[in-house]
Parts: sequence; structure tokens; C-alpha cells
Amino acid sequence: MNLLNKTINSIAGQNETVRAQAKERLDQLIMPHWALGRLMDLALDLAGICGSIRPSVERKTIVVMAGDHGITDAGISLFPKEVTVEMVRGFVNGVAGINVLARQAGADVKVVDMGIAGDLSILAAEGNILDRKIASGTNNFAEKPAMSRDQAVRALEAGISVAQELADSTDLFGTGDMGIGNTSPSSAIVATLCQLPIADVVGRGTGLDDAQLVHKIDVLEKALSRNNPDPADPIDVISKVGGFEIAGIAGLVLGAAALKKPIIIDGFISTAGALLAGRLAPKSKEYMIAAHRSVEKGQVAALADLGKEPLLDLQFRLGEGTGAAVAMNLVEGAVAILTEMATFSEAAVSEAK
Amino acid sequence: MNLLNKTINSIAGQNETVRAQAKERLDQLIMPHWALGRLMDLALDLAGICGSIRPSVERKTIVVMAGDHGITDAGISLFPKEVTVEMVRGFVNGVAGINVLARQAGADVKVVDMGIAGDLSILAAEGNILDRKIASGTNNFAEKPAMSRDQAVRALEAGISVAQELADSTDLFGTGDMGIGNTSPSSAIVATLCQLPIADVVGRGTGLDDAQLVHKIDVLEKALSRNNPDPADPIDVISKVGGFEIAGIAGLVLGAAALKKPIIIDGFISTAGALLAGRLAPKSKEYMIAAHRSVEKGQVAALADLGKEPLLDLQFRLGEGTGAAVAMNLVEGAVAILTEMATFSEAAVSEAK
Repeated sequence: MNLLNKTINSIAGQNETVRAQAKERLDQLIMPHWALGRLMDLALDLAGICGSIRPSVERKTIVVMAGDHGITDAGISLFPKEVTVEMVRGFVNGVAGINVLARQAGADVKVVDMGIAGDLSILAAEGNILDRKIASGTNNFAEKPAMSRDQAVRALEAGISVAQELADSTDLFGTGDMGIGNTSPSSAIVATLCQLPIADVVGRGTGLDDAQLVHKIDVLEKALSRNNPDPADPIDVISKVGGFEIAGIAGLVLGAAALKKPIIIDGFISTAGALLAGRLAPKSKEYMIAAHRSVEKGQVAALADLGKEPLLDLQFRLGEGTGAAVAMNLVEGAVAILTEMATFSEAAVSEAK
Repeated sequence: MNLLNKTINSIAGQNETVRAQAKERLDQLIMPHWALGRLMDLALDLAGICGSIRPSVERKTIVVMAGDHGITDAGISLFPKEVTVEMVRGFVNGVAGINVLARQAGADVKVVDMGIAGDLSILAAEGNILDRKIASGTNNFAEKPAMSRDQAVRALEAGISVAQELADSTDLFGTGDMGIGNTSPSSAIVATLCQLPIADVVGRGTGLDDAQLVHKIDVLEKALSRNNPDPADPIDVISKVGGFEIAGIAGLVLGAAALKKPIIIDGFISTAGALLAGRLAPKSKEYMIAAHRSVEKGQVAALADLGKEPLLDLQFRLGEGTGAAVAMNLVEGAVAILTEMATFSEAAVSEAK
């Protein structure tokens, strides 16, 4: 709890002085005013986050938080739970979606076992994944709380510790997730924190049909009513209806914000984690960059609550950090605009009449 | 006319056999079905365009077609005509928006003088720009046709010749433009070809205020009524209300399509050029990738006519090829998904129940 509180208390907002300096330069670049739109808004944020008009985003890391979910016993996902372990092996072998898109973006991928229901100690011993396992999957929160309050705090602190461990080799973080069934806790978290009906924030996950979607909504409605998480207490929400990897993402976001590093938020699961981070430390929102609009409608609600407009809309619904990886190119572009373009006077270009 | 006709006649559609092979592989990749959405649609197109399930997009070139416009005399732009030359010097010096975003994407920038009203022969002699100058700017089409029919054909053929010249060093083309005043001919082209009222396709260009926008619409309405371009004859449209760089872009698109190379279409001016190419050779549309949604509403109309959904919406309104450069990262990502991800059986991952 000490690390969590210390981290939350150390999160300050963006550097407004540097932000203003960046604005002054961007206003004078050789183009019609603000003609590179959202990348210029992003450049302002990066300057404010990093406290530099020459922010560095060269060393990029996507952190894929992985965990399993007892609620898969309630038949809310098309894929069996074993797939979490199988996909982690795929990540280590470099053949999954996140691997190829991270390579394209020049980013490293770090996989963290936050609570996988399977023994991955050999991969951890070989240094291929980070071991922060809290337990072998959560409880089925259709029946009882997903985890204890102590476990929720430890999962948040594990996320913070990952940010700290990677900070020396990372200028720009991206979030990612792996966990069969994890759209269910994400929907439960968003419904609770945004005080929305569960049906408004539940999607088809990996590809449910109409009847399966109705079942998922029914399971989650009953689970929320049984657990009754307190919207004013984010740790209560994590404990009762959360997941280890979602708490890990929330912790990673808090850790990055405390370190004044930009962090790109991936899809639905990551946005649920970011929402938790934003409730625990509202200033952490100033360090978040929303990567993309997910097919999962719960993510759209969570982004609206965070006040974030995503950079991309590519109809992704994979997670893993794939949207964050693609968005890293845009972040690099934003920095290039701020640091490499000339002003009207530098280039001797005539200004508007 | 020989090169133009020969090129148009040689444009065949995508390779449907290879497209089907790519579909088969994409259907089996280790993720929920089609969970990387639009990048997978794009991967299919790239396979069909290149006729290979391992399409190469490594060598990337943005071609910036530049030209001036007599209609600037009618007061339709905020910036003086001299800026076209000044910006071309900026491109050569590597300090403009397109330079920094092309560098981020790993793309070369080639600037083509299609009809700049200024002497750039030294830059051409030094090999810094390609000289395809048809004339020193178009006529003011508020008063008379922008160019002769012969000039329009020569401008189209110049664009084709640029595609041919760069083909040996280019796997993936991107279009770009520079020309003060060129949203005006672009609006006139789109209004004519899509048979829309001019007011529906005119925007603020480099930043007109309300009164200036009303003036621009008025000038273009009168210019169209005086010139009366024939919507069924794209070359007539170019001659009467077009521009040298817009014709160059149309030619570049035709040349790329004939060479079976993918070409990313940038913003409003490029989309007007692509629309012309699509009218001259409908199959050329199968080689076009729409980069982004421009702030200029005429581009949205032209994209709808082409049946293209843009990949990005970043509130760009700069041109130069900046949107195409950013989109090149997405094209690389699409190829990586197709060529580097494992299938369920290759990775021994369990499939959906």
C-alpha cells in the first residue's frame, strides 16, 4: 500500500511552461496554422508530459499484462482458458499480432505474468517474461469476489514496479493485455465506474453470437448485483469484479505518470485499466494517449469518461497492445513535427496575408 | 496521347487468385477472426495488387507534384503564389511537414515541377527535383481555360513517366501536392465529376474566413459556368478547371496501377487527381489506398465517389503527401500481419469452440 500511495501522491500534471513553449513553436511552423491537426495536439501533450520541447520517444516498450479469469467457467468466452498460456508462448516466440506490429513500430514487447492459470516459471527463469503472478487466475466473480483487497493492491503495485523496472530503457510506454475472458471484468469495471447499465458496455469479445451475448450480459448483471462494488472505491471495484492484468495495467499507468513518461492506452481492457488509474490519481490522465477506438462499445464509454479522443479507428478488437503499437508511429510523427520542421522565419517562407 | 492510351489499356484489376490465398491465410491467424480489422482488409488489397502473398512495401516514395495556379489572381488563397517556390526549397532542404513525416515512415520524397511559376532549373540540374514543367502556372480559369487539351494530356503523361522512372526503386507510392491555390481547381474538378453544387465541395483551404469562403465559392461558381467542363470527358475537365500538378497526380496513379504497385492517395488535391484517374481507367481504383480524411469537405465527396474509406482521420489539411506518409506505417503493419504472424496450427494455439 505504501508504494501505491507514494506513487499516487507523486503524480503531478503536465509542465505547462514547456507546453506553452511548444505551442509557440508549433504556431510558427511552415504550413497553414495547425494544419497537421491532431498530431500537433499530440506534440503539445508530449512536450508537457516530458517537460521538454524536444521530447524523446525513441525507446518504446509495449507491456503486455497477462492473467486468467475464473468467470470463464460461466461460459462468457468462445476460447478456452488454456489459450492465455498458448498465446504467451506465441508472444515469446514473436509470432503474434503484437509482435509483428511492435516490430513495425520499433518497440520492444515485455510480457508480464500477472496471474496466469498455468506454470510459466521456465519462461520467467529464462528472462522471457516478467513474473508478477498474484494467483493462478481470479475467482469466478459470478460467485464471489474476483480477488481479495490485498491482492488488488499487490497487483496495482506490481504494475507500478514494472514501470519502474523498465523506466531506464523506455521513453514511451504502451499498454497491452492477454487474458481469455477479460472483456467481462472490463465491462463490469466500466459499468461500475461510469455508472452505466451493463448492457451498454458489453460487446461480443472474441466473437460471441447474439444468444451468447445475451448470456454474457445476464451473467455480468447478476455478478454485479451479487458483488455490489463501490463506484467511489476503485480498489473495491478491482477486488470484486476486476482482473490481475487489468490491475497491472492500472498500476503501469500510475507508474508511468509518476515517472513523467507518456503511456499509450490500447483497447478495451487497457482503457478499463486506465479508467481505474484515472480514478485513483486524476492527474494520471494527463500522461495517457488513447491509441484507437475499439470495436467493444464499453471502451468508447470509458474513453468518453476519461475525456480522450482516440488517434485511430481501424476496427481492431484484439488487444495485446496492437492498437498501442500502431499508434506509436503517430507519436513519433508528432515529435518529428515539433523537433524537425522549420518555422517561417527559419525557412524564409512567406506567411499568410 | 500514345503513352496515356497505352497505360490506360494496360491497367488490369487485382489478382483475385492471390487475394483468395491471402484471405485463406489471414482467416487462420492466431487471433479472433479478423480481429485486426481494417489492416487485414488492407493486407488483402496489397496481396491482390502486388500479386503476391508476400507483398513487398519496403521501398517507399512520396511523389510531391508541384504547380501554380492563375486563379490565385482572383483572391482565393491566403498565401501569395511565391510560397509554392519557397516551399519546394523547403522540401529540398528537408524541413517541411512532408520531409519529417516521410523520414518517420522511412520513405523518400521526390518533388516534381509540373508547372511552377518560377525558375527552379538549378534545383533540377542538381538532381533535387524532377523537371516536368508544362508551363509556368495555369491560366486563371475564372477567365479562360486553365490549359490546353494538349497540355492536359502532356501533364498526365508526365505523371505516368514519373511512375515509370521511379518504379525500379519503389514498392509503394504515395501522392503529394504543392501549389498555392490548388484547393480551387480540386473543388472545381470534384464538383464537375461528381455533379455536385460547388458550395458542397469548397472548403477554407489554408484558412479562409467566412467572407473569403463566400468569395471563393462565388469565383468558382462563375468559373465553372464560364468554362462548362464536360463531366464525361476527364481530359476536358483538367484542361478547363484543372492544374498541372493535379493532372500529374492522376498520371502517377495511372502509372502505378499499370505497374501493379500500390499507391497511397493523400488529401484533397490528391483525391481529386485520383478521381480523374478513376474516370480515365476505372480499374486503377483497385490500386489506390485512401490515406486519411481531410478537413476539406470536397475530399470526403471524392472519396465516397471512389468507394474508398480512408485509414486515418487526424484533422490534416496540409497536403504535400503528409497523410500518405503517416499511412505508410499502416501499410507496413498490414503486410507484417500477412507475412509474419503464425496460424493456429503453426503456433499450436487452441481455436474457438
